Amino acid sequence: MDFAYDARTNELREQLLAFMDQHVHPAEPVLAAQLADPAREPWAVPSVVADLQAEARKQGLWNLFIPGEHGAGLTNLQYAPLAEITGRSIQLAPPALNCAAPDTGNMELLAQFGSAEQKERWLRPLLDAEIRSAFAMTEPEVASSDATNIATRIERDGDEYVVNGRKWYITGAMNPDCKLFIVMGKTDPTAEPHRQQSMVIVPRDTPGVTVKRGMTVFGYDDADHGGHAEVLFDGVRVPAENLIGEEGTGFAIAQARLGPGRIHHCMRAIGIAERALELMCRRASERVAFGRPLAEQGVVQDWIAESRVRIEQLRLLVLKTAWLMDTVGNRGAHTEIQAIKIATPRTVEWILDKAVQAHGAAGVSQDTPLAQLWAGNRTLRLADGPDEVHKRSLARRELKRYR
Amino acid sequence: MDFAYDARTNELREQLLAFMDQHVHPAEPVLAAQLADPAREPWAVPSVVADLQAEARKQGLWNLFIPGEHGAGLTNLQYAPLAEITGRSIQLAPPALNCAAPDTGNMELLAQFGSAEQKERWLRPLLDAEIRSAFAMTEPEVASSDATNIATRIERDGDEYVVNGRKWYITGAMNPDCKLFIVMGKTDPTAEPHRQQSMVIVPRDTPGVTVKRGMTVFGYDDADHGGHAEVLFDGVRVPAENLIGEEGTGFAIAQARLGPGRIHHCMRAIGIAERALELMCRRASERVAFGRPLAEQGVVQDWIAESRVRIEQLRLLVLKTAWLMDTVGNRGAHTEIQAIKIATPRTVEWILDKAVQAHGAAGVSQDTPLAQLWAGNRTLRLADGPDEVHKRSLARRELKRYR
Amino acid sequence: MDFAYDARTNELREQLLAFMDQHVHPAEPVLAAQLADPAREPWAVPSVVADLQAEARKQGLWNLFIPGEHGAGLTNLQYAPLAEITGRSIQLAPPALNCAAPDTGNMELLAQFGSAEQKERWLRPLLDAEIRSAFAMTEPEVASSDATNIATRIERDGDEYVVNGRKWYITGAMNPDCKLFIVMGKTDPTAEPHRQQSMVIVPRDTPGVTVKRGMTVFGYDDADHGGHAEVLFDGVRVPAENLIGEEGTGFAIAQARLGPGRIHHCMRAIGIAERALELMCRRASERVAFGRPLAEQGVVQDWIAESRVRIEQLRLLVLKTAWLMDTVGNRGAHTEIQAIKIATPRTVEWILDKAVQAHGAAGVSQDTPLAQLWAGNRTLRLADGPDEVHKRSLARRELKRYR
Amino acid sequence: MDFAYDARTNELREQLLAFMDQHVHPAEPVLAAQLADPAREPWAVPSVVADLQAEARKQGLWNLFIPGEHGAGLTNLQYAPLAEITGRSIQLAPPALNCAAPDTGNMELLAQFGSAEQKERWLRPLLDAEIRSAFAMTEPEVASSDATNIATRIERDGDEYVVNGRKWYITGAMNPDCKLFIVMGKTDPTAEPHRQQSMVIVPRDTPGVTVKRGMTVFGYDDADHGGHAEVLFDGVRVPAENLIGEEGTGFAIAQARLGPGRIHHCMRAIGIAERALELMCRRASERVAFGRPLAEQGVVQDWIAESRVRIEQLRLLVLKTAWLMDTVGNRGAHTEIQAIKIATPRTVEWILDKAVQAHGAAGVSQDTPLAQLWAGNRTLRLADGPDEVHKRSLARRELKRYR
Repeated sequence: MDFAYDARTNELREQLLAFMDQHVHPAEPVLAAQLADPAREPWAVPSVVADLQAEARKQGLWNLFIPGEHGAGLTNLQYAPLAEITGRSIQLAPPALNCAAPDTGNMELLAQFGSAEQKERWLRPLLDAEIRSAFAMTEPEVASSDATNIATRIERDGDEYVVNGRKWYITGAMNPDCKLFIVMGKTDPTAEPHRQQSMVIVPRDTPGVTVKRGMTVFGYDDADHGGHAEVLFDGVRVPAENLIGEEGTGFAIAQARLGPGRIHHCMRAIGIAERALELMCRRASERVAFGRPLAEQGVVQDWIAESRVRIEQLRLLVLKTAWLMDTVGNRGAHTEIQAIKIATPRTVEWILDKAVQAHGAAGVSQDTPLAQLWAGNRTLRLADGPDEVHKRSLARRELKRYR
Repeated sequence: MDFAYDARTNELREQLLAFMDQHVHPAEPVLAAQLADPAREPWAVPSVVADLQAEARKQGLWNLFIPGEHGAGLTNLQYAPLAEITGRSIQLAPPALNCAAPDTGNMELLAQFGSAEQKERWLRPLLDAEIRSAFAMTEPEVASSDATNIATRIERDGDEYVVNGRKWYITGAMNPDCKLFIVMGKTDPTAEPHRQQSMVIVPRDTPGVTVKRGMTVFGYDDADHGGHAEVLFDGVRVPAENLIGEEGTGFAIAQARLGPGRIHHCMRAIGIAERALELMCRRASERVAFGRPLAEQGVVQDWIAESRVRIEQLRLLVLKTAWLMDTVGNRGAHTEIQAIKIATPRTVEWILDKAVQAHGAAGVSQDTPLAQLWAGNRTLRLADGPDEVHKRSLARRELKRYR
Repeated sequence: MDFAYDARTNELREQLLAFMDQHVHPAEPVLAAQLADPAREPWAVPSVVADLQAEARKQGLWNLFIPGEHGAGLTNLQYAPLAEITGRSIQLAPPALNCAAPDTGNMELLAQFGSAEQKERWLRPLLDAEIRSAFAMTEPEVASSDATNIATRIERDGDEYVVNGRKWYITGAMNPDCKLFIVMGKTDPTAEPHRQQSMVIVPRDTPGVTVKRGMTVFGYDDADHGGHAEVLFDGVRVPAENLIGEEGTGFAIAQARLGPGRIHHCMRAIGIAERALELMCRRASERVAFGRPLAEQGVVQDWIAESRVRIEQLRLLVLKTAWLMDTVGNRGAHTEIQAIKIATPRTVEWILDKAVQAHGAAGVSQDTPLAQLWAGNRTLRLADGPDEVHKRSLARRELKRYR
Repeated sequence: MDFAYDARTNELREQLLAFMDQHVHPAEPVLAAQLADPAREPWAVPSVVADLQAEARKQGLWNLFIPGEHGAGLTNLQYAPLAEITGRSIQLAPPALNCAAPDTGNMELLAQFGSAEQKERWLRPLLDAEIRSAFAMTEPEVASSDATNIATRIERDGDEYVVNGRKWYITGAMNPDCKLFIVMGKTDPTAEPHRQQSMVIVPRDTPGVTVKRGMTVFGYDDADHGGHAEVLFDGVRVPAENLIGEEGTGFAIAQARLGPGRIHHCMRAIGIAERALELMCRRASERVAFGRPLAEQGVVQDWIAESRVRIEQLRLLVLKTAWLMDTVGNRGAHTEIQAIKIATPRTVEWILDKAVQAHGAAGVSQDTPLAQLWAGNRTLRLADGPDEVHKRSLARRELKRYR
């Protein structure tokens, strides 16, 4: 259990912190202004992101998330503290570094399971941020946390696969730069439950693909990063070589995609929590009610202390999980990967809630980032399966230890 | 402690429930469509509301909230269960019955403290829903829960008052039908703390009034009822007769306005909770995960049972408060009025959170009312002073009992 | 929903409050001294209780709990506020008034289901507090919340029943004055699940009965009211006329016994909560830390306000339940009877916990009643079935409403 | 941040785990029997402890807690996982290894601040477990978490100090083997607040010392390790050389004593939590209710998963704190030392509560260790200052970061 930040990590942290101060935080009001511009192209990513990307790339702060030859080659434990830093400006920093979901997971997936052609055609431009991608798994009609429920069909027909189904909350899909969907569906509903699914690449402009509407998250359309779309696949035909891996490996690939993404999400969420705590402290020091700054009122002090106590525990657990993934692999870190999925969103939610409360009306408004951060974080209790599913699974493993 | 619904209440409940089923619930998709129409006038109330108002008025379901000769003349205890019913369709039912905040509070205020001229010019058309109104109290720069912090100035200058200040979260102010603001400000900053404030009526079209922007609530602009505006008052001059009551009575009038409004808010919130519980139960029965409906899973059952247990306790407390207000007045119901302010939003928030969770992604989306209801309810932990302020005050009274 | 205290209730409340002040509270240190006397007879009820009983009986404050001709003939709603008052001195007031569990439930049971002979032999002396009784249902080996699990056998053999089994947490059984056990067991394990059980009266001195040991509750032996015994029944023979009601009615009788007892328990628990809140307020006013009384510290104020808000809601729910039981019967009050079982212990536990915390070390000690009250209250989350069982049942009924 | 268990730690863990299995756990029923023996000397430590001590000493599992030459010379990080293991049998393992509070803290204190004579006379026999000691700080009359409140006086009179005061919850003081009290009092009430206090050694048999009574903790007298005494110091005279360190250093010494003790307490508490979780899992697997083992019921699974998630976070935080203390000292670990004080007791309490609930009546009884563990753990929310005090202090430091 050695979570110390090594020399490379510390060096990158310094560099990234400077990048945040010099480029990212100053760009936050620019982003807000660009998003508020009534003349802007709907759903397109504001141009400030591309400006930041250019600078980040120049500085070598690029593709830090991806292991192996395609990016910085960092371990999970090395990347984790960097992901936390990007969480402090969640709309800008991850895309600026080409480290934003869902592209990160898609790039990892293509790097790990894609064919040479798929890598050349899709992975390379993604690594260069020339295009964006989406991951089409969740379906409105079924409890998608149980992959055996997936209703979308991917049927072989000669040299093609035919995709039929309805997906939603396909993040990034409204972005005009989004060029491909990685679609999960069933190729063989008669196989054993976890061998029924496959994944195929569906170019966004394929006939039969309809990006129907943007779904909202507590009133936010998340247009800054391409929203969350409902997408129909109606007799969509793609060449057979668009299959990722082999038929029946969709479930396994989805599982492999989850682990590192979990670390990224959780560390960014901790960055969000740190920012919320900072905002709460600043507000509490400045705001006076009933003759005293909020900072001197016991209940607010309680919130602040609790926030710190909870963040410290949570970060250690996520770092340990990253370290376990690096040392014993996803399978050996199974319990911890579930534990951080359970522990992170609710902890961060609690802190955001208190930060909102300390800000009064400003907390729920567009004048602080808190309400939007809250909404985004709230979805993490649902995304990749609701917490309840993960708790059940974790409990069963725990129970087995004593039998 | 007799909270039984009397004959008049039961009759009105029956009538209102029928109105909900026949008119309000069927109008919900109409409202959604009108709001989504890109050609609609921004911030205007969709026309379906006026249609419902016509029907409600025809049926005598009109101004039920207001005591005395101006409306139905119901007691708080008689109106409370009706308010709960309207909470089940919170966007439509209250305005349909001309029982929506902030007009309700403003009408009560004018009925109680307005001059004959003020009643004729403003109250009558409000009672007829010909115009709408806003209540301008909260300020961005100060902790407005402490009225002594109010920074807006109302200064006498000859036959006029001159208003200078900045307000925000002025609900309904973006609505083109909104014709007047009741503005709270200080006429005498040197008076004793609770005699410094006064209220004046400021017609919306008075020079110097700028409705600057719509504030959002967790991403929602609440355009269906005129949003929540930031409003600047810059050298705004109104005739001296626009003063409500006397100089220095602003704080007292604000307090008087709060009591009944608290009952309305809380009962509507209970209606929201009941609807959320119904949606959660229906979803749990329909949705299957891991081979069983959610309804058979212990954790979901726990949510449902908790929701029922909490709603039952909460409703009784609000009804008792209404009964106390009717029998011993606002002052005698002080503890209870604070207690329901503390207990209601968090209870309803908890239930909405679980209903969201049971719905998965649909819960945070625009396809169920849950996320928007959550956001609106969340603000109640802040509005009229954060819960923490009310708890402190309640605790002090409790402590005095044992000294 | 009329929970007003009627004239009779108010009169009895006044009388009882005076009795508490004049007799019960002054007797509390006497009880403590008698319990601490090393020469006292173990498990015997200290003599101060008999003194109080004599006074209470003289004043007509006797058997208030029992409906019908045997006692005061109060309704549940009339008795409930009296039970609350007795909760303020839980070790002394209920036995002083002959209103202490488990005798109350046993007397109700005998009054309702007992034969004339059983009433004459057992009910009459119980009503006169000449003897005490115990109710033997819970078993160590099985989940007794599920009555179909009961393992104790009651087998007919000629003119006798033969009882074999092991019970524990048989409250009052160590008391030398305890003369009878009402024992639940299975007469016919082949009948349908809820017709297998029967109840018989087993005189405590019957051969084969072994009162094995006193069970503890968080370190307390509860010797002041006869403790909680483990009892073995080994070939215990009683005359057939000791059967209560008919064979196969044990489950139904147990259910009938529960309703009123639930009201009693919950109202007494509210009395406990009120006392804890009073102690917390007094302590907070007196104790100074870091230059200010605890009463001026925000977190302590939060505890006090929360306690009041929670108690108010809880009491109304229990009163409503009592009123429902009086007006529509146990069955019609099913949901509420479960709801108060769920809501009461945890609410009171929370308040006691905060009162303990405000008292520091004194709170966990024998110098305040708080720790012992906490322990006794904690068992209510388990007794009569753990909360989880009641929540599941309540949820299922709720779910049915929407199908 | 390297919390890995090093070779020495792993070796000792193996050895200690074997000792637990072979000697400690088998001794648990022996302890229970010895404590239940009516003929035993009250408050004396049962002889099974001495037997275990002999074995532990033989194996070199002795004084593991103490750094430097007096014991095993382990770092905090090396000792922490061993302390966790001893927590699994909290009544036996710590004393068996001569690693039980309050002797541990007293030995550290004497080793660090004691004179050569004090070490020879008191530390040596403590290290050999020939005698026991107590630490007399907490007072009934004042909020002792604020050391400036201490009322006990230690006054110089010629070659002696005269001690007057009243202390309580002096753990171990009823034990006949307890030969000394380390007493905190004020030598100079006029000095600056944190220089007023001093510590002196008071032999237990000094005239004027009265061990008045054993205080209880939720009904437990904790007689197995000498209970918790109320002690009067009435004109108690000790030689001036019994002063520890210099006059005015009492506060600083007390602070120094706290850090390592906090680690010990918290790690043992984690051991308690692990045992509770194991008991809960075993019970859940064995116990059947309503046709299914508890282990298959969603709510119980939720408890188990939550327990694991919470323990993992907590342990990492305590290990980090130990590592910080080893690397940057008590002062650098200030926030973490407070954080574990806040986080540990409540986390362990929550788990114990659920384990109790899963056990039904057995959980509150003497037949499982759970209730007693709960009671002991509950006091940790009060001991060394209530959590609220530590939260306030931690919040203030956090607030300073952003000013």
